[in-house]
Amino acid sequence: MAHPVVPGFRWSGIRAGIKSNGKPDLGLIVADGPVSAAAVFTRNVVRAAPVEVASERVRGGRIGAVLVNSGNANACTGGPGHRACLRTTKAVAKALQLDERHVFPASTGVIGHLLPADRIVEHVPALVRAASPEGLGDFSRAILTTDKGPKVAVARFGKGASRVTVVAVAKGAGMIHPDMATTLGFVATDASISHSLLGRMLRGAVDETFNSLSVDGDTSTNDTIVALASGEAGGTVGARSERARSFASALVDVLGEVGAMIVADGEGAEHAVRIEVIGAPSDAAATKVASTVAGSLLVKTALYGKDPNWGRLLAAAGRAGVPFDPARAGIRVGGVPLVRRGLGLGAASEARVAKVMRRGTYTIEIDLGAGKGRGHYLTCDVGHGYVNVNADYRT
Amino acid sequence: MAHPVVPGFRWSGIRAGIKSNGKPDLGLIVADGPVSAAAVFTRNVVRAAPVEVASERVRGGRIGAVLVNSGNANACTGGPGHRACLRTTKAVAKALQLDERHVFPASTGVIGHLLPADRIVEHVPALVRAASPEGLGDFSRAILTTDKGPKVAVARFGKGASRVTVVAVAKGAGMIHPDMATTLGFVATDASISHSLLGRMLRGAVDETFNSLSVDGDTSTNDTIVALASGEAGGTVGARSERARSFASALVDVLGEVGAMIVADGEGAEHAVRIEVIGAPSDAAATKVASTVAGSLLVKTALYGKDPNWGRLLAAAGRAGVPFDPARAGIRVGGVPLVRRGLGLGAASEARVAKVMRRGTYTIEIDLGAGKGRGHYLTCDVGHGYVNVNADYRT
Repeated sequence: MAHPVVPGFRWSGIRAGIKSNGKPDLGLIVADGPVSAAAVFTRNVVRAAPVEVASERVRGGRIGAVLVNSGNANACTGGPGHRACLRTTKAVAKALQLDERHVFPASTGVIGHLLPADRIVEHVPALVRAASPEGLGDFSRAILTTDKGPKVAVARFGKGASRVTVVAVAKGAGMIHPDMATTLGFVATDASISHSLLGRMLRGAVDETFNSLSVDGDTSTNDTIVALASGEAGGTVGARSERARSFASALVDVLGEVGAMIVADGEGAEHAVRIEVIGAPSDAAATKVASTVAGSLLVKTALYGKDPNWGRLLAAAGRAGVPFDPARAGIRVGGVPLVRRGLGLGAASEARVAKVMRRGTYTIEIDLGAGKGRGHYLTCDVGHGYVNVNADYRT
Repeated sequence: MAHPVVPGFRWSGIRAGIKSNGKPDLGLIVADGPVSAAAVFTRNVVRAAPVEVASERVRGGRIGAVLVNSGNANACTGGPGHRACLRTTKAVAKALQLDERHVFPASTGVIGHLLPADRIVEHVPALVRAASPEGLGDFSRAILTTDKGPKVAVARFGKGASRVTVVAVAKGAGMIHPDMATTLGFVATDASISHSLLGRMLRGAVDETFNSLSVDGDTSTNDTIVALASGEAGGTVGARSERARSFASALVDVLGEVGAMIVADGEGAEHAVRIEVIGAPSDAAATKVASTVAGSLLVKTALYGKDPNWGRLLAAAGRAGVPFDPARAGIRVGGVPLVRRGLGLGAASEARVAKVMRRGTYTIEIDLGAGKGRGHYLTCDVGHGYVNVNADYRT
């Protein structure tokens, strides 16, 4: 597949021997000098060394290169881990003649093992040499851990010289919820936009997309989503402008798309399911119910078993702390009515729903009959594949 | 095994054909007329018909018989379910010449199927005839669903005529946390105690035991724990008396014991693990961290894989919303140090811990180094057995 080019950026991805299986594990994004940048990070109390370093550096609003490794999270590695992170970004800064404060690090992989800085430093020259505008595919593969495949999305808006490209690249294939495995997301755009507006828009887009994959605060030690804007496209994206609205919507599109790929790629999962809650007392209440249903192990195993077990759905909704009258609740799966006024609709309905549940993706709509609030959550099933991947991850 | 006798109570358990597999599914506890009684119920918004009926009836403080069926939860069954429940307790009341308000119903099993009241009513005469002081074993088997075996605990205190027996019988083998499958618990004692004091003590004991298996509110549609006191033992248990302290401690003992059996019997689980959190800013904060770690799917699969994956433990602790400095955190597993000051202690330590993790039960102690608060949670592993039991439960 031909990967999009984003004016102003070069990409690379190589094998540095961090992963024991010999797969690509070191990636680089290079801008033509420091450009407008913003990022959001994990809310976990336990923050990996690269998160500490990157969050400090991005405050300045300008980043010239992003160095990403997979195979090692450099989390829970104390002072030595911090120093290892600094050594790797210093090597990149030197090779690219950048101030090291403009190099943004990100890591993903096993926790508690010291980052092999020597190995990375050794490979930095080759990594820099490999960087090219067409290198997005290599980069997208180098950042993966247990993912089945790379995750890239592109959106464009505007015409002629003021045409803007927005690309998102991500990795992540954890359960998302309730235990998000590390999510890394990288947005590159040629839009001309201030770092503060970029930051506001990034936070808004992440709230609408990634935060509906994972409970607030329910994040891993390394989660990072960073956006860089090269400014090569003509026409500034100013606050409250038509272009700002187009840019915001493009951001939501690309992050939403890679987010859905992460859910579909859930470690060992076979089904990506959207839990849509309507008829709640408020939108917040709807999201709370959707999150509780999406995080329910009994629901997740029922999804795996293709079992139209609406009792588990209602019972999970009922323990979300949101008041509703079960006798007014309804459930549809893939549009097929399964429960009406709190009662199951019988064997024929269940048989039709069981067919829907064989699909790779579908929607479960729960109507609480208690208002106009709505919210959703994406989830996936838990089955034998999940157990295999996660019981053996380190060994 | 010879089951204990509790003066003032008779028990029975028979096959009524509610379960399709022909196992015992109908149980009865009979007192010599209405006796002091108290109960705690699920906090789920979706409450099964028997929960609605029982919670109304126990308010009077006197119960003469408890009718329990397995194989059908009679939840999400609307008006017909409610009427079915009333028909069964009416039949018991008639056979025992009790006021039907003194018959306490409880159900467990599949949700959303109407209770087969006819079949139960038909079997009530046999159930009543079978009731005997020695029938505890039969009762304990008739209330099971996916449990591997019955759960009974007994405690005694006092001497001679004022000797008191406290028995707890329970069913439950769900994941407990985060999705408690139905837990039913029955306490019978010959103590002489008012229903209001019994209620206070029951709530206190449940907080100390069952509520450390399950998050507050995180309960199924049918959870019920009921206590009956026949008053046949001499010497009243008065508030703030020495006997009250002995009684409270006996209650905690028996409920703690059957609670631990429920965790050990976790559907398809191989390990029952106590998550002990110390060094927290407060006891509440410690319990919150213990609950988050206990409920983490990544932790649960690591327990299944016998993987000393301390990164997952720390990362789960870090997302509980409790502030602590990971650089001061420590972890011990079965007493073996695994993490000190936020850093792993290496391969030799992990090898020793991996050995501990082969055991059926052990303790993981997490020291946050952030205060004197402590709390605990019981959890179990998620592996292939769990998936098998829960993906196929209804089929």
